[in-house]
Amino acid sequence: MFTQITIIGMGHIGSSLARGISQMGLCDRLIAVDADEDVCNAVDTLGLADTATTNAVEGVQGSDLVILCIPVGSIGKVVASIAPFLMPKAILTDVSSVKQSVVNAVLPLLPESVSFVPAHPIAGTEHSGPESGFAELFKDRWCILTPSPDTNIRAVEAITKLWEAFDAKIEIMDPAHHDLVFGITSHLPHLIAYTIVGTATELEDDIQSEVIKFAASGFRGFTRIAASDPTMWRDVFLNNREAVLESLQRFSEDLSAMQKAIRRGDGDYLFNKFTETRKIRREIMKLGPEGYPNPQRMAIDSDPCDD
Amino acid sequence: MFTQITIIGMGHIGSSLARGISQMGLCDRLIAVDADEDVCNAVDTLGLADTATTNAVEGVQGSDLVILCIPVGSIGKVVASIAPFLMPKAILTDVSSVKQSVVNAVLPLLPESVSFVPAHPIAGTEHSGPESGFAELFKDRWCILTPSPDTNIRAVEAITKLWEAFDAKIEIMDPAHHDLVFGITSHLPHLIAYTIVGTATELEDDIQSEVIKFAASGFRGFTRIAASDPTMWRDVFLNNREAVLESLQRFSEDLSAMQKAIRRGDGDYLFNKFTETRKIRREIMKLGPEGYPNPQRMAIDSDPCDD
Repeated sequence: MFTQITIIGMGHIGSSLARGISQMGLCDRLIAVDADEDVCNAVDTLGLADTATTNAVEGVQGSDLVILCIPVGSIGKVVASIAPFLMPKAILTDVSSVKQSVVNAVLPLLPESVSFVPAHPIAGTEHSGPESGFAELFKDRWCILTPSPDTNIRAVEAITKLWEAFDAKIEIMDPAHHDLVFGITSHLPHLIAYTIVGTATELEDDIQSEVIKFAASGFRGFTRIAASDPTMWRDVFLNNREAVLESLQRFSEDLSAMQKAIRRGDGDYLFNKFTETRKIRREIMKLGPEGYPNPQRMAIDSDPCDD
Repeated sequence: MFTQITIIGMGHIGSSLARGISQMGLCDRLIAVDADEDVCNAVDTLGLADTATTNAVEGVQGSDLVILCIPVGSIGKVVASIAPFLMPKAILTDVSSVKQSVVNAVLPLLPESVSFVPAHPIAGTEHSGPESGFAELFKDRWCILTPSPDTNIRAVEAITKLWEAFDAKIEIMDPAHHDLVFGITSHLPHLIAYTIVGTATELEDDIQSEVIKFAASGFRGFTRIAASDPTMWRDVFLNNREAVLESLQRFSEDLSAMQKAIRRGDGDYLFNKFTETRKIRREIMKLGPEGYPNPQRMAIDSDPCDD
């Protein structure tokens, strides 16, 4: 599929891609780049790539595909350093949870012959690091591509085939629209989970130990989300600021209304709200675990995003 | 264990108890009471009890154990109607998620010879109704008992044995303290999940359909919680008002601080908060899925409270 692939950032997603690319033989030569020497050593020990290096400039030379698997906040700086060394007609892609700010940062830096095809695989766990990856992570999950209208169509096709090799399902979207949708469906829930678990960390010690002990039912699921990578999520919030603040504003208004109903003892308001929310769950369950009907998986009600 | 048991309310929890009591032969005769005739018919069809009746007064006569499995808001009225007909030395218990208001409502109504042993099994799914129950629901889960200091000790022992027969693990707690702990670990997370899913129901139709389609990662787990029984949860919030409003106040302050950090681009604040929350997750994972170390279950990382 490719002659040489370079993955920059060998964390959970990068190492999952490396495993799959090797297992499926999607290139002749796989190069892993990570700024952390310990991670490079782990990549060598785990045999995840043909070469592992901390030097991104060396690592991208001669590659017809470069995949950025680093936090959003690092992308501009890394692309600025590697751009002059990218092969003519190389394809650059990423896996970031935020798309518009990445497009804005990357496009002005690229030589004309290099194509950028931004991608966001909707997959991941709360685990981090090269040891935690696995090739099946993307199976039956969405992968959103947000190419500009003038992107080379063969580059978009190549990235589509890459993700289809992982059994991911492709959707093309405008980057700003992507950020709006995932601001609600992913970023806001993460912010709220981080906040509620943070609220618990500030409780008096005796209550806190009981909250941990009896963490079933609700809170427990929040702690899994709130164990996600801090650097990645800091950068998501800083780079999708407007959409997150907008959806947070709507949420806060709705929470105030709930608070008022509880304070006033307005049981009808609560009952009606709690009934409406069941509808969305039913629609989601109709779509199956992957967000689209898949007869092979409809029987499975486990959700890889939960514990 | 008992001669005759009456379960009032044959929903998810009541029908789970009925299945286990029958399977384990914990009484000679099991009577099911439910105000809804359709539920009584379902109980007959499913063979969940020896008799099913809509008449609670008839249903409790001659029973040495009566288990209330109805929403918190209905308990006062039901107990007022059955109290004169309870057998001398009968034991009354419940399964409510709120304890102080139940104790306040029930104790003044009971004849002196009847013992009330309030209970809260920390178990359940988002499903409702007599069809959805299963006897294993309480296995390896906590069951909190909140008896008054002057409760007959043999009644407390009998309820302890009942739950131990279901392989639940018992903890004794003061009712007000119970409400404070579960206000944080269960009630507040449910309120927030209901709110965020409610916020999504008010989005423009095109965005809403995409939120449903791409509901992985965070939001999906919230929709499961927000599909819980509306009547039960309305009554929880109305009956644990002070503790819920107090923890909601703390949460709102922390959420405002997050919002301000995002608006100002304060990455250090976000990073530090997101790092602290990982600690609580680690402590919870150390305790295992049930909230206490259980070598047989430590290997299982699935959480029955998630999807």
